[in-house]
Amino acid sequence: MGSTITETASAPTVDEVLARSERAATIWAGRTPRERASVLNALADSLDGAATELVVLAGKETHLDESRLRSELGRTTFQLRFFADVISEGSYLDVSIDHSDKSWGMGPRPDIRRVLEPIGPVVVFAASNFPFAFSVAGGDTASALAAGCPVVVKAHSGHPRLSERTGQIIVDTLARLGAPDGLFAVIFGTDSGREALSDPRVKAGSFTGSIPGGRALFDIANSRPTPIPFYGELGSVNPTFVTRAAAKDRAEQLATEFVGSYTLGAGQFCTKPGMLLVPFDSEISGMLQTAPLPAAKPLLNDRIQSGYVEALAHLQTHGEVEFLTSSVGSDGHPPAPVLLTTTASQVIADPDRLIAEVFGPAALVVEYEQESSLLDLARLLDGQLTATVHGNDDDTIVPELIGVLATKAGRVLWNQWPTGVSVTFAQQHGGPYPATTAPTSTSVGSAAISRFVRPVAYQGFPNHLLPLALQDDNPLHIPRRVNGVR
Amino acid sequence: MGSTITETASAPTVDEVLARSERAATIWAGRTPRERASVLNALADSLDGAATELVVLAGKETHLDESRLRSELGRTTFQLRFFADVISEGSYLDVSIDHSDKSWGMGPRPDIRRVLEPIGPVVVFAASNFPFAFSVAGGDTASALAAGCPVVVKAHSGHPRLSERTGQIIVDTLARLGAPDGLFAVIFGTDSGREALSDPRVKAGSFTGSIPGGRALFDIANSRPTPIPFYGELGSVNPTFVTRAAAKDRAEQLATEFVGSYTLGAGQFCTKPGMLLVPFDSEISGMLQTAPLPAAKPLLNDRIQSGYVEALAHLQTHGEVEFLTSSVGSDGHPPAPVLLTTTASQVIADPDRLIAEVFGPAALVVEYEQESSLLDLARLLDGQLTATVHGNDDDTIVPELIGVLATKAGRVLWNQWPTGVSVTFAQQHGGPYPATTAPTSTSVGSAAISRFVRPVAYQGFPNHLLPLALQDDNPLHIPRRVNGVR
Repeated sequence: MGSTITETASAPTVDEVLARSERAATIWAGRTPRERASVLNALADSLDGAATELVVLAGKETHLDESRLRSELGRTTFQLRFFADVISEGSYLDVSIDHSDKSWGMGPRPDIRRVLEPIGPVVVFAASNFPFAFSVAGGDTASALAAGCPVVVKAHSGHPRLSERTGQIIVDTLARLGAPDGLFAVIFGTDSGREALSDPRVKAGSFTGSIPGGRALFDIANSRPTPIPFYGELGSVNPTFVTRAAAKDRAEQLATEFVGSYTLGAGQFCTKPGMLLVPFDSEISGMLQTAPLPAAKPLLNDRIQSGYVEALAHLQTHGEVEFLTSSVGSDGHPPAPVLLTTTASQVIADPDRLIAEVFGPAALVVEYEQESSLLDLARLLDGQLTATVHGNDDDTIVPELIGVLATKAGRVLWNQWPTGVSVTFAQQHGGPYPATTAPTSTSVGSAAISRFVRPVAYQGFPNHLLPLALQDDNPLHIPRRVNGVR
Repeated sequence: MGSTITETASAPTVDEVLARSERAATIWAGRTPRERASVLNALADSLDGAATELVVLAGKETHLDESRLRSELGRTTFQLRFFADVISEGSYLDVSIDHSDKSWGMGPRPDIRRVLEPIGPVVVFAASNFPFAFSVAGGDTASALAAGCPVVVKAHSGHPRLSERTGQIIVDTLARLGAPDGLFAVIFGTDSGREALSDPRVKAGSFTGSIPGGRALFDIANSRPTPIPFYGELGSVNPTFVTRAAAKDRAEQLATEFVGSYTLGAGQFCTKPGMLLVPFDSEISGMLQTAPLPAAKPLLNDRIQSGYVEALAHLQTHGEVEFLTSSVGSDGHPPAPVLLTTTASQVIADPDRLIAEVFGPAALVVEYEQESSLLDLARLLDGQLTATVHGNDDDTIVPELIGVLATKAGRVLWNQWPTGVSVTFAQQHGGPYPATTAPTSTSVGSAAISRFVRPVAYQGFPNHLLPLALQDDNPLHIPRRVNGVR
């Protein structure tokens, strides 16, 4: 109500934006998946066409380097095209058709046909750390548009100019293609975001960011008179477990790769391995102590910088945490990559404080005496986006360790590193709270679309009144389950 | 902590029950779907074997008649066997396997394999109105056990002896089959239920009942330090829209069938058509006024009775609501079936009060002047389990009306009645709030299982360390998506 969207006087209010979203919802939901796919592909083309301009803007606002940003934009437009392919194929609609059956086991059944339909307007809270891939044109926007929902993006304050420009490219492209007015909008400011999330016209929310920020929005979504699904991707330590045998066989490789992974992008990834568990008597800690660490790099913005300093201090001032090593030549701003160390028994004694995300170029090396401590520690974990095991195929502890980690994390890795999240059919970027607020969902990969659809069953309808996806002659040419058989 | 489960001194505490659930979770999750299916089938056999005893117990506690109860128990055991078949077939696991691919569009991808795994112990809050099908051995229990989760049922206070006996049959059967200790338990009392739902060992909750009751539990689930999914099926008016043409062509049939549907089971169904919209000048209202209504029947229990009286009075004392007719020969306890009436413009003027569930044998007949009022009224609806249209194939208002109703309800019906919810592949028993707290889910039909699973991706694993569902040679013989292709 009255909140401005940008700081210019002529910007529409959140109320006006949502009125247009609501009108667009019916029209966009009525487009076939292939029609929506062609729009997604055109958005990808427009963004690719503006790559140079966008990468320059992003570089100025985020301190990320050009090659990273180019690659991230490539990932972003790949994702739009990937979702276009996924909805065109159509199995995401999960169509199930049961013909009427007088001999059905619990008594005669009517004709029932079920399809997943768009949930309605979605508010997307953009992330700071991926100015393209998890921001205005990122995965949440792409999957919601693909699902058939209008999108209102609450821009991240870390890259306002880029957000505005990206949004403008999307709006212009949509207008050129004849997409419904109001299908997409960008709004600015915390209050605007909260106002939108509280509005009854909004039917789902999504978010990528910190635990406190995500929890506050989750609470708003759930305390509405009419609660809505809220898909928040919040925080993760991404613990990495090194077995005794792996530490013995591959100490140098593990030390080198770990440094590469935890310092990648100055440690500003949701999947940064923030904790490395190694045997106390392995060479790994010593190698890390003398490893060449990358130079200090500026973090995304001042808020990330101050949050990093605070979280690091909280960890570092723990009485049982010691300094292991850091990169040289920095006064802390930008911060030099750093490693701290403690023991497994200390972590087990104080998990709340010692298993905590530090967003930035820091990690905690945890030394264990008994390999069984890996299991004890795994059982203590809160929900994680990822959990990683470096082991040998015949390590006796491994099957049980993997079993425990699979109950804690959305993705479990074997002898690889968690940074780098490919957009694929099988990808899972999620996990139990606080990794996400919705453990049954993913924010990356083709299944991300399913966050923004809801099932509707049609009972007893004549063919011509059914949605196309459910009509007898299958005009959309999509995979369907008929009487229980695909 | 310390709450007793039953009133006997030796009953385990909620804490003890959940400790056993947690231990059972790993073991049960480790059983193959077909192993779990054989247990579900055996549970169905045991319950069928005890049918006579259970139906007698249920009749004493719920006032429901024997034939209804026998049929409901049949539905319940059918459902257990149906879920056994569904998990044996295996597509509920939604397996997706992406082999590593150096030429993947956004850059080389690793080997990633995704499967849906059990979410962990589930607390099921049983319903009063289906002492079998939505209670101790009902759909939530069946789908959670099928998914691989231990279940703790909080019994409904309306049928404690039946709940205890049903629970005992399940526990005995599970023990005989060698299922893990603690896989299933029944607890009693509101405090015990809340304690269980608040416990960190519980990973999801489900509920069938009233809006205030369900909302209170939803709020508990979401305000936990670690929130969990909560699948509540709360309330629904199930509006039924009769077009002008249908009212003209089939007045008598519609009047007769409507009475049959809204009074079925004394109106104690979630899907009871609580509102019938008819043209003001049709014969339907007059026919209803003189229609023979069924005799008064006792409601399920005193709480349902007093809730009914209160909700009916709230509707009836509205200044613009008039009495239409009621069955004779009752002093109100048990209550006689009743019909009230008002106009569409009054409903549009005061939807909060006039579009409200009255759980029991009452309904509101709403007369409209303009057929377009059907659209106006549809747009005002909160979320519904069902919405029904009685129309003719060529009614011009119908396509738009169906489109609006599909955004409001989980199931839309054409020229049928919403009572009677078959358990099938395509069934959808859900809807936007307040029909449910989870609009993306269903509590009936094969998709109900998906409430209790969460995705886990395995990256880079050697074959022998993968779950069976993901191994190369497909030892479970289940449908899988490989590199995007089924």
